[in-house]
Amino acid sequence: MSFKSDIEIAREAQKQPIQEIGAKLGIPSEHLLPYGHDKAKVGQDFINSLSDRPDGKLILVTAINPTPAGEGKTTTTVGLGDGLNRIGKKAAICIREASLGPCFGMKGGAAGGGYAQVVPMEEMNLHFTGDFHAITSAHNLLSAMIDNHIYWGNELAIDERRVTWRRVVDMNDRALRDIVTSLGGVSNGFPRQTGFDITVASEVMACLCLSRNLQDLQKRLGDIIVAYRRDKTPIYARDLKADGAMTVLLKDAMQPNLVQTLENNPAFVHGGPFANIAHGCNSVIATTTALKLADYVVTEAGFGADLGAEKFMDIKCRKAGLAPDCVVLVATVRAMKMNGGVAKADLAAEDVAAVQRGCANLGQHIANVKSFGVPVVVAINHFHGDTEAEIAAVQAYVAQQGSEAILCKHWAEGSAGTEALARRVAEIADSGAAQFAPLYPDEMPLFDKVERIAKSIYRADEVLADKKIRDQLREWEDQGYGNLPICMAKTQYSFSSDPNLRGAPKGHSLPIREVRLSAGAGFVVVICGEIMTMPGLPRVPSAEAIYLNDLGYIEGLF
Amino acid sequence: MSFKSDIEIAREAQKQPIQEIGAKLGIPSEHLLPYGHDKAKVGQDFINSLSDRPDGKLILVTAINPTPAGEGKTTTTVGLGDGLNRIGKKAAICIREASLGPCFGMKGGAAGGGYAQVVPMEEMNLHFTGDFHAITSAHNLLSAMIDNHIYWGNELAIDERRVTWRRVVDMNDRALRDIVTSLGGVSNGFPRQTGFDITVASEVMACLCLSRNLQDLQKRLGDIIVAYRRDKTPIYARDLKADGAMTVLLKDAMQPNLVQTLENNPAFVHGGPFANIAHGCNSVIATTTALKLADYVVTEAGFGADLGAEKFMDIKCRKAGLAPDCVVLVATVRAMKMNGGVAKADLAAEDVAAVQRGCANLGQHIANVKSFGVPVVVAINHFHGDTEAEIAAVQAYVAQQGSEAILCKHWAEGSAGTEALARRVAEIADSGAAQFAPLYPDEMPLFDKVERIAKSIYRADEVLADKKIRDQLREWEDQGYGNLPICMAKTQYSFSSDPNLRGAPKGHSLPIREVRLSAGAGFVVVICGEIMTMPGLPRVPSAEAIYLNDLGYIEGLF
Repeated sequence: MSFKSDIEIAREAQKQPIQEIGAKLGIPSEHLLPYGHDKAKVGQDFINSLSDRPDGKLILVTAINPTPAGEGKTTTTVGLGDGLNRIGKKAAICIREASLGPCFGMKGGAAGGGYAQVVPMEEMNLHFTGDFHAITSAHNLLSAMIDNHIYWGNELAIDERRVTWRRVVDMNDRALRDIVTSLGGVSNGFPRQTGFDITVASEVMACLCLSRNLQDLQKRLGDIIVAYRRDKTPIYARDLKADGAMTVLLKDAMQPNLVQTLENNPAFVHGGPFANIAHGCNSVIATTTALKLADYVVTEAGFGADLGAEKFMDIKCRKAGLAPDCVVLVATVRAMKMNGGVAKADLAAEDVAAVQRGCANLGQHIANVKSFGVPVVVAINHFHGDTEAEIAAVQAYVAQQGSEAILCKHWAEGSAGTEALARRVAEIADSGAAQFAPLYPDEMPLFDKVERIAKSIYRADEVLADKKIRDQLREWEDQGYGNLPICMAKTQYSFSSDPNLRGAPKGHSLPIREVRLSAGAGFVVVICGEIMTMPGLPRVPSAEAIYLNDLGYIEGLF
Repeated sequence: MSFKSDIEIAREAQKQPIQEIGAKLGIPSEHLLPYGHDKAKVGQDFINSLSDRPDGKLILVTAINPTPAGEGKTTTTVGLGDGLNRIGKKAAICIREASLGPCFGMKGGAAGGGYAQVVPMEEMNLHFTGDFHAITSAHNLLSAMIDNHIYWGNELAIDERRVTWRRVVDMNDRALRDIVTSLGGVSNGFPRQTGFDITVASEVMACLCLSRNLQDLQKRLGDIIVAYRRDKTPIYARDLKADGAMTVLLKDAMQPNLVQTLENNPAFVHGGPFANIAHGCNSVIATTTALKLADYVVTEAGFGADLGAEKFMDIKCRKAGLAPDCVVLVATVRAMKMNGGVAKADLAAEDVAAVQRGCANLGQHIANVKSFGVPVVVAINHFHGDTEAEIAAVQAYVAQQGSEAILCKHWAEGSAGTEALARRVAEIADSGAAQFAPLYPDEMPLFDKVERIAKSIYRADEVLADKKIRDQLREWEDQGYGNLPICMAKTQYSFSSDPNLRGAPKGHSLPIREVRLSAGAGFVVVICGEIMTMPGLPRVPSAEAIYLNDLGYIEGLF
């Protein structure tokens, strides 16, 4: 048996002009700003004109804890969107943009796979419509203005040792993690130690993704804390008068991008905040716009449901006033086996017992999602080689949990493979059964919020944090930041902070290493473990094999 | 009397859809890749299909040495293009893209002025179609791959002290001029001193601007020297296998951008190499494409004719097989006065004698251009306040030199103000009088080429260069680089290397401080004086006053 590669399938796509895709959602072509013939931004004026329309149903696709076996969250998001359209529903999908840097390292694309993909795949994995470049520019303008302010006399009394705002580049470049700038003499400023992060880790990215409109964006940018004085009072981007120019740089980037699936259904691809130090969801403006234009909007959140769905609910939905109507939890037989203790090399052999053991991970995610008041359905993303007995084991387990697990074959069959899932999801969404409520109220103290997440979602017994961290959280409460939600930064591979603890561990402790205030984005980041904000390239970067072939096609990108 | 600002005029522009602009040049809309409704890239396949067509006439707009009074080279380029269309000719203009960084410092836009502008002005001064972002990415991918190669074992034996390839950012950021990277321990690599330049100074920019097509681009990128071994043998980008991925990143950027003038005439805006350490002309591919599509193509080159026109002729035309049919030399009465010794504050008063004294500068440029075998006509860019006697003085002087000076009022009147110039330029171009030849043959030794430029164009008596520099040039000749043209890096304010020496100085010496090999771009840079490849922001950056107003318009950018 031979399979076509993702890129081969994508190249065979019969794309429709983007104006026709927009027309399916009722977007007049003059309000679509085209980028080539197959990508467009939806104009701000048109978005503003939609405010009085009713919202469609919101469906979140999330997953079990990821394993090296792969779970296919984006692929299922695309497949479900196509499936809903197939059964006659007006549906759109909302996913995140891909980061350029990792494409030259080792990672493949982020546009789905098989017959459930979004196109144009190459552009989406390269410059796309330039949003990330705009974010890089806005971020680095602020950086330059900080050092420039110090250079010209430092009227704001910035403590050079306490500049927290770094620079960003959309490239995997470990050499830039930790640098000393302003060497070379008086005319180059005051030397200090700082560094670069990858663009997706920028707070500007998180601000853009959480803003309702440009005014909101400018306010958030102004609220960013860039440094402290010797007395530890904060300096804001607004104090440097950088927020206006940053907003100007982000004016186009703030407009959601419209592309299409292989089946010519509309897909919004917009924003891509880091799923660890930020909230890992596509932009609020894309989601709210899609909800005005489609009856069903399928979106996803980064990592497994313990991180992705929790932050989607407690940060994005809370802040944007969204309420999901149904959650789809993606699982694979292979991942269940790995959670049940099977090594990656042994996944080919049938092992129903291991599947049953691994289902504990799935079960805890189901219960967690239900605790937000949202009905959940499990999508079993079918892989060639899954046996009927293994699939039946997952379905039986899920039924015991009071939910339903539906086999999906979108990777191989496109929307024909998700018809059953689409029907069930539409039924649930239409039923009005969801009674969404976030996990904790705004007014709960910051540390209590962390405990609530750790105990309810991770099933930890306790949160370990030394006095310095608790004092810091109280200080932020005193400064008026106590009402912010928590953005957990934890390994995605386990409910616990230990990446090797698969399944559904109980009785563990959650150690907090560090807390950071993202005053612009509007959350407190709680870091449990190592957080890498600038990846490196591997020994043989994929860049070495990327080139244009004689036909002008890109080879080696995926 | 009150004048409208450039931005006010630009906002009142009655823009046509870019497809209509393309249609004027016979570009089918399916070969235009739109970026919004008023910008497009011309597809590579369409460009390839033009090769058998005859070329139109090529007209270079250059200028006297710039003074703080302003000369209006881009404005005249736009005005002449509109003027040619006005008199019934099929004409297009080719200008450079603007750099993002300086817009937030103190510089205004680079899209002409008054009623001779290219639109959309805001986008052209911000992200435009993303070309510069693509160049930044390609450049920095190579940078990351160098440090990554060293990190993983340094198989190529790169001498860490001899890495010549820096990083770039399209931002004025003096703190990045001189930095130490890879601090923080083993996992971040080997610390070394390096820095960032502004994107327009990247050799990748020069490569893109001199390449005929993507294959040529990939070859040039591969030829870039990034470092040396301890034995001083060079390491090329090709050795790191970076050239393929860099070309992929530049695939879209390589396609010329089409926009329009205020009078709805086609304008190609593509490429923007630094005019000092590079050749300062728009891209070869834009110019050659325009020549296939229009009967007259008006283009410009950076700085005054001593630098800009010389490099246009000796680098761009030589390498691309172009031959200009006519040169327009832009002068203003005010600039003549400054060259004649009048201070900027005193420019308002009539001073015919000062004009006459200053004309020496103009005269030397006229003679220089003629020495390339190309007829020259002077355009007097009219400013409110120029007196008839002053204008007559310039015209009389130019007539003595055997040329003609034509008064142009395009800033105030658009194409109506350049009709006379357009008629004369078309007449000259059609006459076939031009007998273009570069200043020196390829096979002349490198140092002799420098001497030829210094003596023929700058009218220096001698070139001063110590043994080390002469040895370096000979070494490059031994390595096979002796056939490259020279890219002079010298102050633009004087024929000499002393920026305060206005007029037409004679008998000076040209001291060479440094030479650099741009093996990818294909020239040897000869540096005479201070060269700043990373600007800083001023005390009050213009960014502080840039914002979106309530109508969503950008304020403060110009």
